[in-house]
Amino acid sequence: MAGSTLGNIFKITTWGESHGKALGVVIDGCPAGLSLCEGDIQVYLDRRKPGQSAITTPRKESDQVEILSGVFEGRTTGTPISLLIRNTSQKSSDYSEIASYYRPGHADYTFDAKYGFRDYTGGGRSSGRETAGRVAAGAVALKILKEMGVTVAAYTKAIGPVSIDAARFDITAVSRTATCMPDTDADKKASAYLKECMMKKDSCGGIIECIVNGLPAGIGDPVFGKLDAGLAKAVMSIGAVKAVEIGDGISVSTATGSENNDAFFCEEGIIRQYCASRTGLPVKKKTNHAGGILGGISDGSQLVLRAHVKPTPSIFAPQETVNKNGENIQIEIKGRHDPVIVPRAVVVVEAMTALTLLDACMLNMTARLEYLKKFYLPEK
Amino acid sequence: MAGSTLGNIFKITTWGESHGKALGVVIDGCPAGLSLCEGDIQVYLDRRKPGQSAITTPRKESDQVEILSGVFEGRTTGTPISLLIRNTSQKSSDYSEIASYYRPGHADYTFDAKYGFRDYTGGGRSSGRETAGRVAAGAVALKILKEMGVTVAAYTKAIGPVSIDAARFDITAVSRTATCMPDTDADKKASAYLKECMMKKDSCGGIIECIVNGLPAGIGDPVFGKLDAGLAKAVMSIGAVKAVEIGDGISVSTATGSENNDAFFCEEGIIRQYCASRTGLPVKKKTNHAGGILGGISDGSQLVLRAHVKPTPSIFAPQETVNKNGENIQIEIKGRHDPVIVPRAVVVVEAMTALTLLDACMLNMTARLEYLKKFYLPEK
Amino acid sequence: MAGSTLGNIFKITTWGESHGKALGVVIDGCPAGLSLCEGDIQVYLDRRKPGQSAITTPRKESDQVEILSGVFEGRTTGTPISLLIRNTSQKSSDYSEIASYYRPGHADYTFDAKYGFRDYTGGGRSSGRETAGRVAAGAVALKILKEMGVTVAAYTKAIGPVSIDAARFDITAVSRTATCMPDTDADKKASAYLKECMMKKDSCGGIIECIVNGLPAGIGDPVFGKLDAGLAKAVMSIGAVKAVEIGDGISVSTATGSENNDAFFCEEGIIRQYCASRTGLPVKKKTNHAGGILGGISDGSQLVLRAHVKPTPSIFAPQETVNKNGENIQIEIKGRHDPVIVPRAVVVVEAMTALTLLDACMLNMTARLEYLKKFYLPEK
Amino acid sequence: MAGSTLGNIFKITTWGESHGKALGVVIDGCPAGLSLCEGDIQVYLDRRKPGQSAITTPRKESDQVEILSGVFEGRTTGTPISLLIRNTSQKSSDYSEIASYYRPGHADYTFDAKYGFRDYTGGGRSSGRETAGRVAAGAVALKILKEMGVTVAAYTKAIGPVSIDAARFDITAVSRTATCMPDTDADKKASAYLKECMMKKDSCGGIIECIVNGLPAGIGDPVFGKLDAGLAKAVMSIGAVKAVEIGDGISVSTATGSENNDAFFCEEGIIRQYCASRTGLPVKKKTNHAGGILGGISDGSQLVLRAHVKPTPSIFAPQETVNKNGENIQIEIKGRHDPVIVPRAVVVVEAMTALTLLDACMLNMTARLEYLKKFYLPEK
Repeated sequence: MAGSTLGNIFKITTWGESHGKALGVVIDGCPAGLSLCEGDIQVYLDRRKPGQSAITTPRKESDQVEILSGVFEGRTTGTPISLLIRNTSQKSSDYSEIASYYRPGHADYTFDAKYGFRDYTGGGRSSGRETAGRVAAGAVALKILKEMGVTVAAYTKAIGPVSIDAARFDITAVSRTATCMPDTDADKKASAYLKECMMKKDSCGGIIECIVNGLPAGIGDPVFGKLDAGLAKAVMSIGAVKAVEIGDGISVSTATGSENNDAFFCEEGIIRQYCASRTGLPVKKKTNHAGGILGGISDGSQLVLRAHVKPTPSIFAPQETVNKNGENIQIEIKGRHDPVIVPRAVVVVEAMTALTLLDACMLNMTARLEYLKKFYLPEK
Repeated sequence: MAGSTLGNIFKITTWGESHGKALGVVIDGCPAGLSLCEGDIQVYLDRRKPGQSAITTPRKESDQVEILSGVFEGRTTGTPISLLIRNTSQKSSDYSEIASYYRPGHADYTFDAKYGFRDYTGGGRSSGRETAGRVAAGAVALKILKEMGVTVAAYTKAIGPVSIDAARFDITAVSRTATCMPDTDADKKASAYLKECMMKKDSCGGIIECIVNGLPAGIGDPVFGKLDAGLAKAVMSIGAVKAVEIGDGISVSTATGSENNDAFFCEEGIIRQYCASRTGLPVKKKTNHAGGILGGISDGSQLVLRAHVKPTPSIFAPQETVNKNGENIQIEIKGRHDPVIVPRAVVVVEAMTALTLLDACMLNMTARLEYLKKFYLPEK
Repeated sequence: MAGSTLGNIFKITTWGESHGKALGVVIDGCPAGLSLCEGDIQVYLDRRKPGQSAITTPRKESDQVEILSGVFEGRTTGTPISLLIRNTSQKSSDYSEIASYYRPGHADYTFDAKYGFRDYTGGGRSSGRETAGRVAAGAVALKILKEMGVTVAAYTKAIGPVSIDAARFDITAVSRTATCMPDTDADKKASAYLKECMMKKDSCGGIIECIVNGLPAGIGDPVFGKLDAGLAKAVMSIGAVKAVEIGDGISVSTATGSENNDAFFCEEGIIRQYCASRTGLPVKKKTNHAGGILGGISDGSQLVLRAHVKPTPSIFAPQETVNKNGENIQIEIKGRHDPVIVPRAVVVVEAMTALTLLDACMLNMTARLEYLKKFYLPEK
Repeated sequence: MAGSTLGNIFKITTWGESHGKALGVVIDGCPAGLSLCEGDIQVYLDRRKPGQSAITTPRKESDQVEILSGVFEGRTTGTPISLLIRNTSQKSSDYSEIASYYRPGHADYTFDAKYGFRDYTGGGRSSGRETAGRVAAGAVALKILKEMGVTVAAYTKAIGPVSIDAARFDITAVSRTATCMPDTDADKKASAYLKECMMKKDSCGGIIECIVNGLPAGIGDPVFGKLDAGLAKAVMSIGAVKAVEIGDGISVSTATGSENNDAFFCEEGIIRQYCASRTGLPVKKKTNHAGGILGGISDGSQLVLRAHVKPTPSIFAPQETVNKNGENIQIEIKGRHDPVIVPRAVVVVEAMTALTLLDACMLNMTARLEYLKKFYLPEK
């Protein structure tokens, strides 16, 4: 219960520190029969790994994943999948100084307050590097969702003052820019802004938007099991996220009901087709202020969420803090740090969204007695 | 796993529909020895109940709570506390029409999509009335937290365009205004705006801010057990909430690191006092952009969160939707509905915050081996 | 986490004390669409209730169940089902003396040790009366299992020295005798033995066997999620149970492998029929030493378990114990007590078995990717 | 939720197959500050590992454990501890034949029935080798319990017909004999019996007893959270266990209440000492039929449980079964197999007992309001 396990049926447990021997994740509850190899996971880890552009830390980590269990002859067996990523670039000497003081904006002080001491090398468990395990598990969830017809894609919506609106974007374009903005112009402007920040020994924040297509209506549970509640937890649990929005998000507080309600409608041709079927009416919505979730349950339209990410706390400008002896001191942080967290966190938001959705989809398979009867009673 | 249970140690399970026989909650894991009577809980339920002012539904519910178990001779026994609230005003006839169509902005369609049919009387389980169980359980959590020196207080920060800043406010003032704004001027403006909305057969949204004082540093767990992740889930699980912010929230995405980092310091007098003690340095922060949480763990400063609440979806203006037969129709909702959800949800935000904090505080009691040894080894 | 919640998907939370206002249970995760009324549950509660024969306590409790939520127009809605049983016979005066000492064989001392004080009226939460909530929830699970073709039936296998072997018995016969032995001769002998015990102011123990038919192969999970592990927990959690056996149980420790292994075989006619189907071979076993579970997963044969129940600890003979002041004293318990726990616990064993099986069956519905694809991908 | 996670606060997740790359466990919720190195764990793994005597499989596995995370500068940090054991002896060729049929007494058929296919090399996840992860995690729990004054020790009580009574035994003697019987005579007799079994190409079962000293009264929760229910689950989840007993176990079903009740008493000298203290009376019991648990909560006396272990299902004598094509065939199993499971499972029972007890002890730390107040309120 130190908080490293997530999910009800598709359950993951991550472990590992920034500068320990390795990081990893155990996935318990993965359905049997999924074709899975290291390559399926590596492609997602590569999107997160450092050292890929001028705006990420030059620290080099190959982040090679190894499947240790749960896969036999190329397919998942239904038993736990253990994924291991060895740490290779462990310059702990860089961090010797940090042991003596609390870095502002970091978890140094709170870990000390909780545990009585801390692993001070690179943030230990509180490092952003912890998300490698999430991304590895998310890759498996994303592959299963794809087989179910659900796609999850995130992109950088804003870096500092540079913002784009990309309700429809080419997901492959996200990987093509260093900022993960699927828009070359915005990418250039954002890159220029980031250089400016770096010159000022400063950092900046940004926004990640995640869009889900193909999710059927009916996913999520009432009350505390609401799909948006699960997503809020999953996304807020990413280190630097300080706000989570669903659909219109913060705008709803200044909207009126007539503006914010999404009208339902049926397309005539489709009605006839469905009326004879057991799955009910193919209800659609004229707008999507709700972001695809009503009463905590998916409504069949596009799911939209946004995460607001704080600026990298490790800045090179002088800062005031406290040392071990309780003395007020001024520090200048050294080392290798991204000037913005957002681009590398895009794939983490995708992963957390996918993990939450898949688990909810699995729970939903027992929502009706007719589902149980169809599953267990031999057909006549 | 239909989502009605929340918490790890202090675990609550709510139940009940808007127009069923009753609503309630079972609290499992409440520590033994707490002095508790119906009055302790009733005072919170009274803050949530309808029919109290011109801006809430005239539906009358006394919302009288009955303690059915878990309390003996005025004190909690450590066994489950069952709390019951009978529904008294069940005019189901009002709702007969709704059975035939899907109300925009409501969960009518998504419940049908999930379960194959729905309790159409007053929203059933998806009604805001479901929160009565949360508030009753929250009252118990709030009482325990108070005994631990922690206070939780929420207020209406905004209704439509009328907004206030109340980092320091008188919590008793919150209950004095119908809007739950602790500011008479703002309350008047907001009330005028609400009347306008009602005249236009419309509704509006708003913002609730919740402030926690006295929470020690060290509460919350890393990774998925982060305190802010738990709070985001708890608050987003309240029906109409579409965004959750911690501390500076959405502003962090446009801030720089030098602006957003909170500098640490020690007050000289206090240092001397603590240096000899085992509890570590009394570290403070010059600012509180973080809202009291760093790396998912409380930092000892004030905890601040905000919920953005959508406008009441039940508006009296004509709306487009779909009926049972798949026909596109126009409807006009009748009945008794609040023009704004915010004022009655203030106490729900308080309750959800308290439930999350107390559970995290209980988990934290096993975070160090020295705590176990101190608890179990007889003192010499 | 005071232990009153059980189950992963079909999750129940019981509450209530022997002499409180009421007892009850909340079922969360019950599939929608089950036809359910009070009568479905009452029939099981009636099998458990006291005052029905010479060998049960003369205390009269009508144990009338009331459905407070989760059922609409006669069918479950998928939301929590709250079941309430009011206590009617609360002669607390009977128990005033017990407050001052610890009854041997009861939980009086351990509750005091844990919580610092206890509800001393009739054992409070540790009373066998607590099982009413389990039986009410079990009735719902049993109804669902029946719709899936699974039947669960328990009977009294032994009372003191009187034992029967009833691998095949008429379940309706179980309810016909006061001992719940489906054998009139054994019932007479057991009844005579019980009278003897009562005359000696003593009590006795016994054995309950539970038999499940129709459970398909594949239910249960490896390692800690083993079906037998879940059953062991569920059955051992019944107050007076001190041992649980699966299949041959304790006999396996003196058996050899060649005796204990169950040979597999296929019936020739059936093979042809199945070979073309996707469900695999219809493998059967020549014997059933395993009791229907191999490696923690059901093997498609009859599931067999046994619970060993200790004698009623409340005996009228003089006993030695300790009072509040730490004085060693002799006591004579008064009041209304069954001379044997077994007959009224038969339906509790059935309930606990059903709850465990249904939850495992629901979990199993997500064990293969092909199940998810079949559920979510529209048929072409 | 494929069942590989156990525990509420001290939570473990095991993973790995018999012939995969590695096995391991992640411990989440281990308190910070425990001194821990590989050697602390290795000593327990060495007690479980194969190839140590004439009565265990000659398969050689060094079972070297590696700590990958959660320990910094020799102490646990409070974050997940990942333990890895590489498989070194993977003669998968031995197992090629097994792929084509179902071994009696094994989980081959049930895994196929559940997952649609199986890892047939050495039993995959259903292999006894899976318990390496449990033992590694158990070693950590045992070390913590020891620091709390609680000791857990198991021994072989019976192998086939050879049985001993060892309520008081020298735990170091357990490791000295190949049978894990702390009695040289019995060890010789049991060894002779095992040789006989091996000559007959057969195997045999046995009994493991586990004894816990130093456990304070008050551990465990009512209803489903009973300490004996948790222990029953934990021990029954060990592959070959078919029955679990607490205290007098199966004997209670033929005992009378006057025989089975344990009288309470106070020692006079001790009373005086305690009467002034807040911890209550030092109540003791004259006998211990209950095995240290009353009403699911520890009573402060010795905790006693027994596991009945079935004979090794892999025997070399000819057996009847079914092959892939549904043909009834006769097989002769080859390979490397222990003639009895018991000696290597002794340390597994210890581990499972320790894991359950530690988790219950941690939960108990929040059972009273006074504990929370003492923990959180600064002393005056």
